[in-house]
Amino acid sequence: MPLNSIDETFLDRLTAHLPEDTIRPAEARFAEEPRGRWKGAARHVALPRSAEEVAIIVRHAAEAQVPLVPYGGGTGLVGGQIAPEGGTEPLLISLERMNRIRSLHPRENVAIVEAGAILQDVQDAARAADRLFPLSLASEGSARIGGLLATNAGGVNVLRYGNARDLCLGLEAVLPSGEIWHGLRRLRKDNTGYDLRNLLVGAEGTLGIITAASLKLSPIPAGTGTALLAVASPAAALDLLALARSRLGDGVSAFELMSRAGYDFLSEVIPELRQPFETPPDWSVLIEVGLPEGLDPAEALEAVFAEAFEEGLVRDGLIAQSQAQADDFWQIRERIPEANRKIGAVSSHDISVPISAIPDFIPEGIARLARIDSFRVNCFGHLGDGNLHYNVFPMPGRSRADHDHQRSEIKRVIHDLVHEMEGSISAEHGIGRLKVDDLERYQDPAKMAAMRAIKAALDPLGIMNPGAILRERR
Amino acid sequence: MPLNSIDETFLDRLTAHLPEDTIRPAEARFAEEPRGRWKGAARHVALPRSAEEVAIIVRHAAEAQVPLVPYGGGTGLVGGQIAPEGGTEPLLISLERMNRIRSLHPRENVAIVEAGAILQDVQDAARAADRLFPLSLASEGSARIGGLLATNAGGVNVLRYGNARDLCLGLEAVLPSGEIWHGLRRLRKDNTGYDLRNLLVGAEGTLGIITAASLKLSPIPAGTGTALLAVASPAAALDLLALARSRLGDGVSAFELMSRAGYDFLSEVIPELRQPFETPPDWSVLIEVGLPEGLDPAEALEAVFAEAFEEGLVRDGLIAQSQAQADDFWQIRERIPEANRKIGAVSSHDISVPISAIPDFIPEGIARLARIDSFRVNCFGHLGDGNLHYNVFPMPGRSRADHDHQRSEIKRVIHDLVHEMEGSISAEHGIGRLKVDDLERYQDPAKMAAMRAIKAALDPLGIMNPGAILRERR
Repeated sequence: MPLNSIDETFLDRLTAHLPEDTIRPAEARFAEEPRGRWKGAARHVALPRSAEEVAIIVRHAAEAQVPLVPYGGGTGLVGGQIAPEGGTEPLLISLERMNRIRSLHPRENVAIVEAGAILQDVQDAARAADRLFPLSLASEGSARIGGLLATNAGGVNVLRYGNARDLCLGLEAVLPSGEIWHGLRRLRKDNTGYDLRNLLVGAEGTLGIITAASLKLSPIPAGTGTALLAVASPAAALDLLALARSRLGDGVSAFELMSRAGYDFLSEVIPELRQPFETPPDWSVLIEVGLPEGLDPAEALEAVFAEAFEEGLVRDGLIAQSQAQADDFWQIRERIPEANRKIGAVSSHDISVPISAIPDFIPEGIARLARIDSFRVNCFGHLGDGNLHYNVFPMPGRSRADHDHQRSEIKRVIHDLVHEMEGSISAEHGIGRLKVDDLERYQDPAKMAAMRAIKAALDPLGIMNPGAILRERR
Repeated sequence: MPLNSIDETFLDRLTAHLPEDTIRPAEARFAEEPRGRWKGAARHVALPRSAEEVAIIVRHAAEAQVPLVPYGGGTGLVGGQIAPEGGTEPLLISLERMNRIRSLHPRENVAIVEAGAILQDVQDAARAADRLFPLSLASEGSARIGGLLATNAGGVNVLRYGNARDLCLGLEAVLPSGEIWHGLRRLRKDNTGYDLRNLLVGAEGTLGIITAASLKLSPIPAGTGTALLAVASPAAALDLLALARSRLGDGVSAFELMSRAGYDFLSEVIPELRQPFETPPDWSVLIEVGLPEGLDPAEALEAVFAEAFEEGLVRDGLIAQSQAQADDFWQIRERIPEANRKIGAVSSHDISVPISAIPDFIPEGIARLARIDSFRVNCFGHLGDGNLHYNVFPMPGRSRADHDHQRSEIKRVIHDLVHEMEGSISAEHGIGRLKVDDLERYQDPAKMAAMRAIKAALDPLGIMNPGAILRERR
């Protein structure tokens, strides 16, 4: 099905059916993405104010067979929000004007928010109602709910609270037919037919445009505690996790692994950041716990630390004595991506493996990379979820450009290893346009066929974010 | 697309491609279902031993356009496992021979089990590995994993651990094309394309046959406690839930509401069951908590009780001092469905509403029913999930048959009220064949259209459990 680039006729017709200033020339920000891999080709953006306006846009796009690319906070790392130059020129749809928190239901632990709401604003609104919206990640100050759901975002609290999909109870969305699905349910149990919600969550805008969501809130734990512990090895970190969970159960909300490279990169490019350890440990973990009344989080962490020290799992450690100290620990973890960007990765991999495979995966990856060339690997991430950001950097004195010719080999080597270990080549960032080839290579063929059938069934014209996840049909 | 009934040619061809004794005449048990609403028409059942054998069956059925009806433990309450008499004669596929626990990964909190495994066996295997598989419901001694996932079963621990879908990390399934999807991942994070897992979970066998699943286990809480508390009203019960969760957080794993009718029915038809209260309270809740080390569950419940008593939410209560006593409390809750069956319901409703709507829903339902006739309502269930079993019984001295002519009006009145209150007409039992009309009446039209498109895309011949969830295309 050939798609058509935007033209004047289309723009005129659309403008005639929408309030003034809904369609605009796209500013430069819409053509950029965080890792600078693509330059967007869209020259026009729609800024609708309601699901009804989104539906008008979708119906006109379907009629004219013009592609639509939905745009959230623009923080995606795999190019799902970017229509690259050289293809058909699409219309961007930014949901930024639909940023209201429509209602809060503290007794039900539910918030109804529009797709354009910024994550931090949702967190703040929940907190003001004495509730927790636990989705938390580095870009929370600009990422928007619609994009977070479309990519099934992860972050640091997945261990306890799940991914974005686990925090979503219902959706309002415009389907490729132009119909609005009114599915903003506030129910914990609803077995009335196929799970369209989970199909749209993670579909990266290729099956419809999310316009609002019903989100699950949680009680705020009575007390939280944070510790930064130097562990003997990744295997010891896993034993520590098992120990902590056997003592504190679901109370463990974050369990983040960091390697020495992370600390070294921080001192190299963000020297003003205060480092907690005198000598950075080879491996360390940041633990956060949230506990019910009657338990002192610092004491509970102290007890876990003592037992883990006894067992030789932990070599050194710091337990935050104040919120300020906890924030300092988190700064270390959260500024690693920034340090990585400043150093400049040759290749970044957002992967997951079964968590018991992690101690084998980390050194095996390093060994296989060493057959290509000398690199520094900064491996860090959400150990409790088996999700590592396994990023490959040039040795000091060399540059990214020196390794340009090796990039695809590096990626292949790491992804092949992930695949051998029954892992995922995209743990939390999605497929976007970056990993379309990888998906074809590694995904189960029966699932690929089912995905293509679903796409063709729900979006027969192929207008919804063409080229994301699935190769564009021509 | 017209389907064909099983004939000798089909059976001969299938038998030739499968090991001996895979296809058999269906015993009487396959024609029955728990509520006695339907009599099954299938005269043959396939008992495959592997996903490969299931795939052979599906491919032959597709070729001959013979319908297939997957069969788990036969405990479904909406007729999803029954092909009623009068239609095309299908082949049943029972997964009961595929009942192995393929592997257990305690460090990862994962179990890989076949679809025919009985829930209780999975719970026991997890416990033997010092882990919890939290799915728990009355029929756990005979319900099988495949059916539990196909219907997205709920039960008593959803408040803390989620529905069946939340406990599933991956699937192996035979799609209607006859291809096997090898999706038994042990990953907490995997964003590689559309969520086919959640599409099959809850599809009641209409989009494929689940042959094995990767299931999420949890640490066993250090200590558990159980209390049975008489509350002032359903509204007070909700306040008690909020209070308990603010004190104990996620520690509250079950919160079950019971009405006086439940106790009365039990003394009427199961008089040998020891009742905990001298005078049955109008409303009571069964609370179970699972807490980490350092907290005494009985003490924690005592503190919640004292505070709730102070606030006038709770009038009387019992905190289990032993496992035997906790089991006694659970007996009350778990034998209510049996008592209901002995009394004989005029109409049963598995509904959910936003939990803050429950205090209005219960009396409004009773008031609307009273306009039809005099009834007894036994309303009980998973209050923490907003899921009530709202069952309507004849007054003493009258029989179900006296109300036969009112049944559809009763159902309509209750479901209309649920719909007005933005609830679900099937909270945890599914649609099956019982609620196909209700689904068409109450479901959002855009979602219905999307469901039909998905069904047509994945099962273009319509051979997979035709007539369940969606009306059979002819």
